[in-house]
Amino acid sequence: MKMSDTSDLRAIGIDFGATTVKIAALPDILEEGATPPLVLETASYGSVEHLIAAIAEAVDEIQSRHKNMIALGCGVPGLVDFERGFVHTLTNVPGWQDIALRDLLERETGLPVFIDNDANCMAYAEWRYGAARGCRNVVALTLGTGIGGGLIIEGKLYRGSSFAAGEIGQMSIDYEGSPGPFGLPGILEGFIGNRQISEMAASRLQHQPVCDGGWSPRRVAELAAEGDPEALQLWLDIAGYLGSLLSSIAWLINPDAFVIGGGVANAAELLFDPLEKKIRGSVSTVISADLRILPARFGNEAGIVGSAAQAMDAVEEEPR
Amino acid sequence: MKMSDTSDLRAIGIDFGATTVKIAALPDILEEGATPPLVLETASYGSVEHLIAAIAEAVDEIQSRHKNMIALGCGVPGLVDFERGFVHTLTNVPGWQDIALRDLLERETGLPVFIDNDANCMAYAEWRYGAARGCRNVVALTLGTGIGGGLIIEGKLYRGSSFAAGEIGQMSIDYEGSPGPFGLPGILEGFIGNRQISEMAASRLQHQPVCDGGWSPRRVAELAAEGDPEALQLWLDIAGYLGSLLSSIAWLINPDAFVIGGGVANAAELLFDPLEKKIRGSVSTVISADLRILPARFGNEAGIVGSAAQAMDAVEEEPR
Repeated sequence: MKMSDTSDLRAIGIDFGATTVKIAALPDILEEGATPPLVLETASYGSVEHLIAAIAEAVDEIQSRHKNMIALGCGVPGLVDFERGFVHTLTNVPGWQDIALRDLLERETGLPVFIDNDANCMAYAEWRYGAARGCRNVVALTLGTGIGGGLIIEGKLYRGSSFAAGEIGQMSIDYEGSPGPFGLPGILEGFIGNRQISEMAASRLQHQPVCDGGWSPRRVAELAAEGDPEALQLWLDIAGYLGSLLSSIAWLINPDAFVIGGGVANAAELLFDPLEKKIRGSVSTVISADLRILPARFGNEAGIVGSAAQAMDAVEEEPR
Repeated sequence: MKMSDTSDLRAIGIDFGATTVKIAALPDILEEGATPPLVLETASYGSVEHLIAAIAEAVDEIQSRHKNMIALGCGVPGLVDFERGFVHTLTNVPGWQDIALRDLLERETGLPVFIDNDANCMAYAEWRYGAARGCRNVVALTLGTGIGGGLIIEGKLYRGSSFAAGEIGQMSIDYEGSPGPFGLPGILEGFIGNRQISEMAASRLQHQPVCDGGWSPRRVAELAAEGDPEALQLWLDIAGYLGSLLSSIAWLINPDAFVIGGGVANAAELLFDPLEKKIRGSVSTVISADLRILPARFGNEAGIVGSAAQAMDAVEEEPR
């Protein structure tokens, strides 16, 4: 059942991170000059219960400002059981193991709640409101310390048989490489995770003064923009590694869009120009013709937008 | 609209190959002691029109034997536009370029016709009647001279944005390998296509007498079964290459089954035992727990079964 007029329906999104929990309302967060999200420091609450109580308070506050909230979405940095609203583990959030987060939040807020992985939320945000609007099959990825991904297949978020699909950072580009944390050799994250980029930079850019924060991808991008040939080559290599994997994924999925976000993606044309060249030079013309390679629209707000949008659409589709 | 009683509905399947065109009826072909398919020699018809006419005759003959035929499916070895029923190119079938095969066959037979890639037909056959019955997300592949694949996603054949998905043989396992025909280095087909297996065998099995047909995967399997350590190692290597790619695909798709068919898959436990070990040692427990790695049920009949089943299901779903 679809509701006939959905224009004033709203949902609340929670971006649950290891450092902060950010909470805001959709579609308001998309508007120019929107109220910034409410922010809680994840580590400053001693227990799961205390953090849940603080989230519920923030949700109340948002509901007092915005009417017509029909759902609450929550994106978390880890593996979830989407169907049962269950968090298996959260990366870098101690104490969050095997938590029935959906039930806890539903009890505290009275709203229908949907829990999903943060990379899935990012993919949904980009497909629903962002760079990949109107696409049917989308492979989205975020480049950072870890590399996550999400898939939109035939206009629906695809989660996989046990809600673990889209782990692009764990895919291999070198069957003879050094083993990743789960045993597979040569995984993408081991080539272009932030830490690996810093290490490459440290060994190749010794002619440049190291700045305080060490070799961040941003610093390497600055040096490349200034014309340092080693820094430029480093970006070419990053595009080569990533392009190899995305070409393989294009052969498998034949998507209409790749959407790439996260810190490294800020390097813009340093990354996107060689990446596009690499991919188009590695797939058939039929696959290339329908394929767009797009920078993500959303940055920090992807988790809020995606989790809220998913929850809103799920309730609209099938009201509880 | 679903028809209420579908037990006596039938469809005709055509397995259109470079050497032969095989035609039979579903579900009859699945029965013990079924009439063998009608077989036409592809090359013995001088033109597309003559071959189409011969196919139409064969279809008539089958219809005179079996009633209730509601659809005709045709699986072809090449790239198709599924929506328009259009064949772009057929591998190894000269003269078949840009042919409106669906319209030609509909005109000649009067049946609703559906054209698809043969690897998609194989995936559909295995999901609908074969090894992967009851699964939701399936990655199927056939190992042969070429390596093809097909995807079932959420219980539907997934074709991709331009009907070119599932090209598993074109995916890379080595970003530094030698370039494949479309430019991507280190593609799977370049490691374990039949020709590559023969070449590996020729260089590594020089202590064994070469038999007339050269080093077929079958001969290498025989030597491995006899305990030749080089032949055994060669199968381990094949499992390693294939396992590396399938592990990556498992991280991306989180399927409940891989189905593997084609000549090389006949090596049975020589391939499947180390392959299973490699994959389970390369993915998370959550992904591994729901994943089965299965030999295909169908061999030569996969194309007929899959193309007929697809056509039958499509017409049932949405009668024309």
